[in-house]
Amino acid sequence: MSPTPPSSVRRVACIGAGVIGGGWVAHFLARGYDVTAWDPAPDAEDKLRRLVTAAWPALEQLGLAEGASADRLTLAPSLAEAVADAEFVQESAPEQLELKRDLLAQLDAAAPPGVVIASSTSGYPMTDMQITAATPGRLVVGHPFNPPYLIPLVEVVGGERTDRAAVEWAAEFYGVAGKSVITMDRELPGFIANRLQEALWREALHMVANGEATVEDIDASITEGPGLRWAFMGPILTFALAGGEGGMAHMLDHFGPSLKSPWTRLEAPELDRALRDAMVDGCERAADGRTYAQLVAERDQGVIDVLRATGRLDGPAR
Amino acid sequence: MSPTPPSSVRRVACIGAGVIGGGWVAHFLARGYDVTAWDPAPDAEDKLRRLVTAAWPALEQLGLAEGASADRLTLAPSLAEAVADAEFVQESAPEQLELKRDLLAQLDAAAPPGVVIASSTSGYPMTDMQITAATPGRLVVGHPFNPPYLIPLVEVVGGERTDRAAVEWAAEFYGVAGKSVITMDRELPGFIANRLQEALWREALHMVANGEATVEDIDASITEGPGLRWAFMGPILTFALAGGEGGMAHMLDHFGPSLKSPWTRLEAPELDRALRDAMVDGCERAADGRTYAQLVAERDQGVIDVLRATGRLDGPAR
Repeated sequence: MSPTPPSSVRRVACIGAGVIGGGWVAHFLARGYDVTAWDPAPDAEDKLRRLVTAAWPALEQLGLAEGASADRLTLAPSLAEAVADAEFVQESAPEQLELKRDLLAQLDAAAPPGVVIASSTSGYPMTDMQITAATPGRLVVGHPFNPPYLIPLVEVVGGERTDRAAVEWAAEFYGVAGKSVITMDRELPGFIANRLQEALWREALHMVANGEATVEDIDASITEGPGLRWAFMGPILTFALAGGEGGMAHMLDHFGPSLKSPWTRLEAPELDRALRDAMVDGCERAADGRTYAQLVAERDQGVIDVLRATGRLDGPAR
Repeated sequence: MSPTPPSSVRRVACIGAGVIGGGWVAHFLARGYDVTAWDPAPDAEDKLRRLVTAAWPALEQLGLAEGASADRLTLAPSLAEAVADAEFVQESAPEQLELKRDLLAQLDAAAPPGVVIASSTSGYPMTDMQITAATPGRLVVGHPFNPPYLIPLVEVVGGERTDRAAVEWAAEFYGVAGKSVITMDRELPGFIANRLQEALWREALHMVANGEATVEDIDASITEGPGLRWAFMGPILTFALAGGEGGMAHMLDHFGPSLKSPWTRLEAPELDRALRDAMVDGCERAADGRTYAQLVAERDQGVIDVLRATGRLDGPAR
C-alpha cells in the first residue's frame, strides 16, 4: 500500500482548512509533522493561522512533540502542489457528496501513488465517495471529532473498493499520530459515535420543537448528569453499574419492560435472548476482571476528578 | 405546603435502600442530615451500610457538611416509623407502577401533614402514581442519577394533582441539599435526561443487535469522543461551536439536509423556521455574551482538564 510506514510519515497534507480541516492542521503540527494545507477560500490562510494560534496554548498543555512548530505549516497555492510530496492526505471539505466525490478523485490523481487519502466526512459512506477515483483502493474514511486536536477519537472505515491494507495503514498511522482509533469492518451511515450522538441530538430537537424543554435544560441535563460519567466510562458500562452487583443482566431483566415505554421517539429493538447475552457478555469483557466494587470506586473517583477538573467542587452544585 | 422551610430541614426519610435509595442515603448523610431509612429486604441494612461505607471516602473528597456522619443513619423497623418525624421523604422503590402507587399512598398516610414526598422514579409520570394517595398535592418526582451522592442532577416535576407549591418546595430543598435542579413545568415520559440518554441507549442496542458495533466500540466512541465535551458543555452548545463563527445558525443551515440521512433509527423533526430559530436563540442565551473565541477557549481548556483528570494526558491516547 503506502510507500511510507506509518511511523515514518513526516509530511501530511490537509485539504480544506475550516473548523475541522484547521483542527487537523493544528493536531498534526503539534505532533511534529510538516503540514501543507490547501483551501480555495480567499481568506483561508488568515483564518487557518488564527485557528492554529488560538489552539497552540492548548496544544502546549497537551504536550508538543519534539520539533513541533506552527512554522512548519505551509499554505499551497493549488491542490496538486499541496499533495505533491505528501505521505498522508486528510480531506476535510464541506459535507457535500458531489464535492467530496470530485475532490477525492482530484486528490487521487495528484497524490503520489499508494499514499493513503482519508476523508473527514461525518457520515458519507466511502463507497459513495470513491466511485469516480482512478485508484479508489487507497481512499478511506478517517472521521474525527471537533476539535480534532483535542478529541482523541477517529473512526476508520473503508468503502467497497478500498484495500484492506489502506484501512489498516490509516488506523496504524492515526495511532502513531496520537489519536484513539476505532476501526469499523463495515460501512454504517453516521459510523458509530455520530449515530449515538445524532440519536440524542434528534431527540433534543424534537423536545425543543414541541416546547418540552429548552436548549439550556437539555444541555444542563447532560453536563449535570450523564455527561459527567461519559467522559471516562461509556453509557453501557455505566448503565450496568446502575444494576448494582447484578450488573447488566439485572438491568436488562429489571428495565427490559420499560424499553417499551415512550421514553424518546426512538423505538427500542426486541430485547431477545441473543441481544441480552451480547450486552451482558460485552459488559463482562469491558469490566475485564474488575469487580463491581472496583468499578464503582473507579466511577466515583472519575466523577469526582471530573467535577474538580471542571470547577464544580467549590460551593454548591450549579 | 411543608411545615418546614427547605433550609431548615434536618430529618430526611429514605424509603427503599437499593442502589438509588442507598445513594440518596449517602448523599443526605454527607450533607449533614439525620437519615431514617426503611427497606423491606431482609439484608437491606447490611447492604445499605456497605454502600455508605464504600461511598464515604468519595463523599469526604467532595467535602462533608459540618456534623455529617454515617452514624446519623437509622434503619426503621417499619415504613410508618421511618417517616413519622421526617421533614422530607425520598421514595426509591423498584420501578413498578403498582408498587410505587401503593407505596406512595402508604407514605402519604404515614408522613406528617404537608411534608413533601418525592419519588426517584426514572420515568413514571406522577399523575399515574398519585391516584390512590389521600393528599396527592404533596407528591412530586425528584429523579436523580446514579450515583445520587455524586451526580448533581435532579429533575423535579409534579403530576396533575400536585400542588405547585410542593414542586417549588422540592426544587428549593434539593438546591439547599447540594443538588443541581431542573424543574419541569409539564410531565414527559422519561423526563429530559433519560429521554436523551435513552435515545442514545436504544441506538446502541440496535447496533449491538445488528452486529454493527460491539459494547466496547460503543463505550469507547463516547469516552474518547463526545463524552469528553459533555462533562462540562452540553451537546447543543458543543454542536454550535462546530459551526465556527457561524455557530448554530451555520450548523443548521449546513447540516440541516443531513438531518434526513439515516444516521440513527430516530427520525428527525422538520427543521422549520421556528425550530431553527429556537435552537439559535437558545444557543445565544446559553453563550450569555461569550464570544465564539471565548467559548472555544473554554471548551478546549475543559477537554484538557477532563483528559488530565481522567489520566489521559500521559502517553499516547488510548
